Amino acid sequence: MIRLAPVDGGVTAAAGFRAAATACGIKASGLDLAIIVPDAPAAAAAVFTTNRAQAAPVIVSREHLARTGGRAAAVVVNSGCANACTGADGLLVARETAAVAAGLAGCSPEEILVASTGVIGVSLDAGRIRRGLAAAFPSLDAARHAEAARAIMTTDPFPKEAAVRLETPAGAFTVGGMAKGSGMIEPMMATMLAFVTTDARVAPPLLARALREVVDVTFNAITVDGECSTNDCAMVLAGGASGVTIDDGTYPLLVRGMRAVCERLALGIVRGGEGATKLVTVRVAGAASPADARRAAKAIANSLLCKTAIHGGDPNWGRFIAVAGRAGVAFDLDRAAVSIGPTVLFSGGAPHDERAAEAAAYLKGREIEVTVDLGAGGRDEAVVWTCDLSAEYVRINAEYRT
Amino acid sequence: MIRLAPVDGGVTAAAGFRAAATACGIKASGLDLAIIVPDAPAAAAAVFTTNRAQAAPVIVSREHLARTGGRAAAVVVNSGCANACTGADGLLVARETAAVAAGLAGCSPEEILVASTGVIGVSLDAGRIRRGLAAAFPSLDAARHAEAARAIMTTDPFPKEAAVRLETPAGAFTVGGMAKGSGMIEPMMATMLAFVTTDARVAPPLLARALREVVDVTFNAITVDGECSTNDCAMVLAGGASGVTIDDGTYPLLVRGMRAVCERLALGIVRGGEGATKLVTVRVAGAASPADARRAAKAIANSLLCKTAIHGGDPNWGRFIAVAGRAGVAFDLDRAAVSIGPTVLFSGGAPHDERAAEAAAYLKGREIEVTVDLGAGGRDEAVVWTCDLSAEYVRINAEYRT
Repeated sequence: MIRLAPVDGGVTAAAGFRAAATACGIKASGLDLAIIVPDAPAAAAAVFTTNRAQAAPVIVSREHLARTGGRAAAVVVNSGCANACTGADGLLVARETAAVAAGLAGCSPEEILVASTGVIGVSLDAGRIRRGLAAAFPSLDAARHAEAARAIMTTDPFPKEAAVRLETPAGAFTVGGMAKGSGMIEPMMATMLAFVTTDARVAPPLLARALREVVDVTFNAITVDGECSTNDCAMVLAGGASGVTIDDGTYPLLVRGMRAVCERLALGIVRGGEGATKLVTVRVAGAASPADARRAAKAIANSLLCKTAIHGGDPNWGRFIAVAGRAGVAFDLDRAAVSIGPTVLFSGGAPHDERAAEAAAYLKGREIEVTVDLGAGGRDEAVVWTCDLSAEYVRINAEYRT
Repeated sequence: MIRLAPVDGGVTAAAGFRAAATACGIKASGLDLAIIVPDAPAAAAAVFTTNRAQAAPVIVSREHLARTGGRAAAVVVNSGCANACTGADGLLVARETAAVAAGLAGCSPEEILVASTGVIGVSLDAGRIRRGLAAAFPSLDAARHAEAARAIMTTDPFPKEAAVRLETPAGAFTVGGMAKGSGMIEPMMATMLAFVTTDARVAPPLLARALREVVDVTFNAITVDGECSTNDCAMVLAGGASGVTIDDGTYPLLVRGMRAVCERLALGIVRGGEGATKLVTVRVAGAASPADARRAAKAIANSLLCKTAIHGGDPNWGRFIAVAGRAGVAFDLDRAAVSIGPTVLFSGGAPHDERAAEAAAYLKGREIEVTVDLGAGGRDEAVVWTCDLSAEYVRINAEYRT
């Protein structure tokens, strides 16, 4: 018998973690520096952006995890400056950030992970980071998770926190986390950052495997505008304070808890997408392979024509068929089908436009599900979450520096 | 000595071609049927959408060209109805269209090419097509090219015609054409149709090769929103009335003429893109391969963040770097560069934001060029044309049926 229940506490919901946040002047106003600190160095893993233009903090955190074999004593995150496209200068400041935090945490610099989000092409101000870290460390407290979640926001319309407690035959443990999503006024890209903690005890290789598995079906299954930032990363720390040890047998429990947290955070990112008014679940079925299913779902989720149709409440099934047809996957028009909510609008090669009014009424809702069957004879499926595309998205992205 | 000069006359500028247009009631109002007829059956070639959801006219025209080996006695184009996703019914009407036109043209149905653009999921009304063809054939005239160009429009803001006359050591010949682009209110997709004619004499295999070569660097090098319709096609007819014969030696002359026409038509499609306010030339240099160059240029041209930055007049070089970095091509941040117009904003790993005002002034223009050097050590380049992304695009596509 396994019970999974949401709990409060975000990134410090798991026992043995504290957080702090401060305003150190990287942003014009507001909290802009957060730290997450386990009571003792914890197992750590991360996945980073696949963008070949990698920001300095991505390069440094990846190096540190490689050197320690997956251990971290603190995570330092700033908003307001991405420290990307900043060359050797940017790398120096990212390393200095780790060194200063190591001094305050009493660990080696390699045990510090760093992440940044904000303007591209501007190096972090080392002095501000130093003063911010000096202010943040003394105020570490498990109660400060909500401040930390606010400190990593850029133009996110709301902070994103989630946590769950699992009661299992192997014992009870907690997974929590926080994330920031798309919607930045000052910077160049919609960087996604996520930080997850657990009080389960997990060896670094298993933790890394769980993170990859969970990210694939959560953060990598969402899209706002199809972009991939220079700074994207998701990090997980496992402290062990619960006394529950994860091994090959209990691994599925860890994945289940991490997936529950990351899915909530990921859906929060989509709900808070730039200009978003609707959360859209794109389900692709009848695919010849899992890769085809994912590819078609991503094509639909990133299609301007599909996203604007949903924004306008238009049950425009032809756009979904046409995008599935051009997605580069096995597709059979005569066996394909499109449903908007529960309403089948196209199947067996024939439209059912007499049901358009029913689908239009459904589209007035805030949470929309669209299902496209590729008719390719397979049984593979995929789900991708996205948001609609509004004129507000254009306004935010066309006018943010003017 | 080769001289190439623009001439009037669009799709009937070449000797030996006539056109006609009529309003047969497929659209609520206005011209909706065009025919292009050579004086005698002409060599013909076409390229069709790669979308796996292929409209009935695409299926029928492809069949006909295969059966005749590349010969056509007339082209029939309607707007207002795409005859796509219409199953067996749609195929029947497309075949009936060809049969009726063949009766009027005095040829076999296989010598008729058909094309449609308009609402998906609705079959053509055979009676309207019959009456339209009966009205159009008697009015065929070389002077009616402009009417034909208007009859194939959907929400195109203006008709697109182009023609050039080439004077060459091999003799003088003319290439002309018309196209419709993106921007349809009623239908589902931004179908692109193009029809090119020439009075050069060209064997069908050479004509097909020229069309593929020219389409690759013109119609396939433009993008409005990254979509590919169920109905896209480009067709070319070569009659031979000029007396100039194209062989392997004079093939480059044909390509030069067709490219001049198709590039003008393609740029017209981009200028008339839905909600477009600027024509954007995306030039990618320093690529490791031609495929990398094209892929990066397409990624930038389709990036919402790049398109909205240009719309807003924001010299946001970081967006171009970040999209190049995620485009899946060889890329070196330390050697990459971004120029907006003549202004280098990022190079050698360092921003030149002191030049931002200069670039912002340039971005106020209607014709914008952005150059991204991938820094990948190669010398390959590619050009892709696109338009900016405006709130008007969202309005058109979100609200067109409401």
